[in-house]
Amino acid sequence: MSGSNPSASDKPCVVLLSGGLDSATVLAYARANGFAPYTLSFDYGQRQAAELVAAERVAASLGALEHRTFRLDLSQFGGSALTDTSIDVPEEPTQGIPVTYVPARNTVFLSMALAWAEVLGANDVFIGVNAVDYSGYPDCRGEFIDAFEIMANLSTKAAVEGQKLTVHTPLLKLTKAEIIGLGVEHGVDYGITVSCYQPTAAGLACGRCDSCRLRAAGFAAAGVTDPTPYIPA
Amino acid sequence: MSGSNPSASDKPCVVLLSGGLDSATVLAYARANGFAPYTLSFDYGQRQAAELVAAERVAASLGALEHRTFRLDLSQFGGSALTDTSIDVPEEPTQGIPVTYVPARNTVFLSMALAWAEVLGANDVFIGVNAVDYSGYPDCRGEFIDAFEIMANLSTKAAVEGQKLTVHTPLLKLTKAEIIGLGVEHGVDYGITVSCYQPTAAGLACGRCDSCRLRAAGFAAAGVTDPTPYIPA
Repeated sequence: MSGSNPSASDKPCVVLLSGGLDSATVLAYARANGFAPYTLSFDYGQRQAAELVAAERVAASLGALEHRTFRLDLSQFGGSALTDTSIDVPEEPTQGIPVTYVPARNTVFLSMALAWAEVLGANDVFIGVNAVDYSGYPDCRGEFIDAFEIMANLSTKAAVEGQKLTVHTPLLKLTKAEIIGLGVEHGVDYGITVSCYQPTAAGLACGRCDSCRLRAAGFAAAGVTDPTPYIPA
Repeated sequence: MSGSNPSASDKPCVVLLSGGLDSATVLAYARANGFAPYTLSFDYGQRQAAELVAAERVAASLGALEHRTFRLDLSQFGGSALTDTSIDVPEEPTQGIPVTYVPARNTVFLSMALAWAEVLGANDVFIGVNAVDYSGYPDCRGEFIDAFEIMANLSTKAAVEGQKLTVHTPLLKLTKAEIIGLGVEHGVDYGITVSCYQPTAAGLACGRCDSCRLRAAGFAAAGVTDPTPYIPA
């Protein structure tokens, strides 16, 4: 299904796309399930601008109807290793919620997806949160998504007029290996995705950050050859 | 209290500030109730850039510790008379939710306030929503705010660690006249605020849009001389 043109019967949806492994899988899943996806990325002041290039590639590769990169500079607020270059990205596992947590990031991203969905007349938003092999971010949990959906359905003109929003989280309870299996099934080329928190400008992965470690372990557990371009050792 | 310097005992808070009458009143109220306010405005592609100038004036006038104008271009999505110049601002009362509704605006603005609050270590956000003399926007209702607060307290590292957020809506159940009375009590100079949906670049109000009509009626009902600079008839 991936790569084919959406048909007239497909329902519009908004897919949050980071350029990483998880959201690429979600996009392929949405396409395979009869949705016509509009993909949304954020230039939020993150270190890894390479992921924005990857998001564009992934959107084109998996049949998005339209891809937008929205500028929204969360680095103005700071408070995260991903938006503040004075905070180092950890290269060893840490206790608790790590410093790569970006304050209210998924709340902000889902709110923007909600805005675009309402203008598009779309009732479905997809996000690649995962609560199994994840970094412990509170805004990746099912209870957060459920609460967001309730709030969203009180906030918009569309909802008041009966067009209720559903936030889809197809990866929520999957292991990283299961996510990779799902993506392979739907034709995702993981070699064009970037998950690393501190890649080179060309998109080479460090292999040491939390995100690289989770990803590499996922390929190993799935029995799939890891196509990630790593920085040469 | 307004205009005085916050004391060390004051708690930090984030106040959403539009430059209009309601949010100026909220800022004065927060200061008068022992908060040290950080004010946040959005350059979201609205017609009325004059309100951003007004917001800066109001923040300075009412003792904000810091005022930020965050660029976040909702006109990229369109769908509102306030962000899309191809849609006229109505000058007569309309049925239902008017075309000046901006999709998901308060959800987006509150999400950004949540992000800044978390970085500041603030547990309080103030917003000037009102469900009495208002335009019928769904994201100005108490049930929306309550749902946002529940969602917010599942979304952040701060909340998980016990720092719960409160969203304050001191104007929710007040009439426009009561809001004006509250502001006058706390020293708000309404002559420097801009409520009009289509003011001139210099900030003169049209006197005909929904927002102007509600505001003028409020001054009349409060028995307060309307200090609004209107476009000469």
